[in-house]
Amino acid sequence: MILCRTIPELKAAVSKFKRELTEGETIGFVPTMGYLHEGHASLLRRSTKENRFTVLSIFVNPMQFGPNEDLDKYPRNEERDLALAEASGVHAVFLPSVEEMYPNRPLTKVTVSQVTERLCGASRPGHFDGVGLVVGKLFHLVQPDRSYFGMKDAQQVAVVQQMVDDLNFPVEIVPCPIVREPDGLALSSRNVYLSAEQRQQAVVLSQSLELAKKWLDEGKLTPNELLQRVQNHITSVPQAEIDYVELLTYPRLEQVPANDPISGSSPLILALAVKFGTTRLIDNTLLTFGG
Amino acid sequence: MILCRTIPELKAAVSKFKRELTEGETIGFVPTMGYLHEGHASLLRRSTKENRFTVLSIFVNPMQFGPNEDLDKYPRNEERDLALAEASGVHAVFLPSVEEMYPNRPLTKVTVSQVTERLCGASRPGHFDGVGLVVGKLFHLVQPDRSYFGMKDAQQVAVVQQMVDDLNFPVEIVPCPIVREPDGLALSSRNVYLSAEQRQQAVVLSQSLELAKKWLDEGKLTPNELLQRVQNHITSVPQAEIDYVELLTYPRLEQVPANDPISGSSPLILALAVKFGTTRLIDNTLLTFGG
Repeated sequence: MILCRTIPELKAAVSKFKRELTEGETIGFVPTMGYLHEGHASLLRRSTKENRFTVLSIFVNPMQFGPNEDLDKYPRNEERDLALAEASGVHAVFLPSVEEMYPNRPLTKVTVSQVTERLCGASRPGHFDGVGLVVGKLFHLVQPDRSYFGMKDAQQVAVVQQMVDDLNFPVEIVPCPIVREPDGLALSSRNVYLSAEQRQQAVVLSQSLELAKKWLDEGKLTPNELLQRVQNHITSVPQAEIDYVELLTYPRLEQVPANDPISGSSPLILALAVKFGTTRLIDNTLLTFGG
Repeated sequence: MILCRTIPELKAAVSKFKRELTEGETIGFVPTMGYLHEGHASLLRRSTKENRFTVLSIFVNPMQFGPNEDLDKYPRNEERDLALAEASGVHAVFLPSVEEMYPNRPLTKVTVSQVTERLCGASRPGHFDGVGLVVGKLFHLVQPDRSYFGMKDAQQVAVVQQMVDDLNFPVEIVPCPIVREPDGLALSSRNVYLSAEQRQQAVVLSQSLELAKKWLDEGKLTPNELLQRVQNHITSVPQAEIDYVELLTYPRLEQVPANDPISGSSPLILALAVKFGTTRLIDNTLLTFGG
């Protein structure tokens, strides 16, 4: 496994891989902010299975954090990350410093409209501009054929896919399923912030998504009715503070009529952001309908 | 010469070229809006000289025209363009329709700040967003090693270089000198709009740039003094209507103190936009100082 801390080192590794590729072989890429867990490992395993070479990037991108967010305390563990990468069959890890990625303040902004208006785009102003910028930079540096993203950040997948389509990036975006703890909690690097009590209560996120599917199977509901039930379930635990609970089309993330019965004309996403103390967790599920 | 009207056709041509490249060989790219003249030809010749393969794109990009600009009447002559391309040794021409480039309204915006604040960025709001979008798309589709741009659009060169630096596009931007008519008028597809009388008067643009250099050689001037003399020279012809005459740093395009003598601490650009009737012409010269 090649460790690259600078852009020239990464470019040398990518050139080497490209020279070694034979007809039909590809490079896979998994961009992360590190503190890797089984969710990241599932992306890496899929990439190493589907591509000749896999590049992992670990970069806590300051441009996608707001001024009052958790940039400074975002968890890091380089040694463990590298061990997990090696065990997952990764061929190169790109671990740049902030100065390496942003030697000067960038004057270029990549902005995706509409898809970023709701959910985390609304709660975290500027977040997806930062994501667009860093993903654009990384795609240009790594030049992958495929890039793997976890569906826990479903809006991020939608935004990156929109940017790839609009700008004709020669990269296939591969969305991958959310990986969960045995009790249902979606894996997240931020779970480490939770107290024991909060960790127990946080199970209401995935529970409420499962309940929502059950309620929809049992009979017709309007978005308003469904969202009310989900909110009630989440706030049944004392420390949960809802940031948003929304039902939108996917991947366009447009609103659906609040008081018409939910129907299966297009795939919908039920997405949640809930704070436990200062820790903000997100989760979601896609709802598809048989008829 | 391969003619590509669709993205799949272009991708097939690019793949073919990439397969045929041997170690150290490169692909050059010249993006244009067609109605090619000797200025474009100079870019194409330089590219065919410096690269194994050269791709030319001809696309009148609606996204970089304002609502009251000359999109509908922008001159076109596909047959002559293809003959010139062939004669210049081009290997593939990409000639997409608007629908091919924009099958849906793009939601992604590429915006470069600061460098776009003055000159054409101020006179043509949104123009450089359109340029950034189409250049980003074309770079992703053609995947060139080098791309050639004429310095007549000096601000465009600065904006594209900024975007390439900020987003780590793996493309070298090659700025090429302005090509002029024997009397000094910078070549432009828009020159065809000029009446015989306007064409004669339009020589004041390049004349005033040459005079400016002479005046600066003769003695110290402030930007205000220099710009006043240039404006006087331009408006000495009856049909010239000044859009802007500016002296800025290059490539950052920042203002210099208006009343301090011009000095050679950093390269400066003297840039003009002048209307003759409805036809807007631009020209510029870089000023570098011996000491």
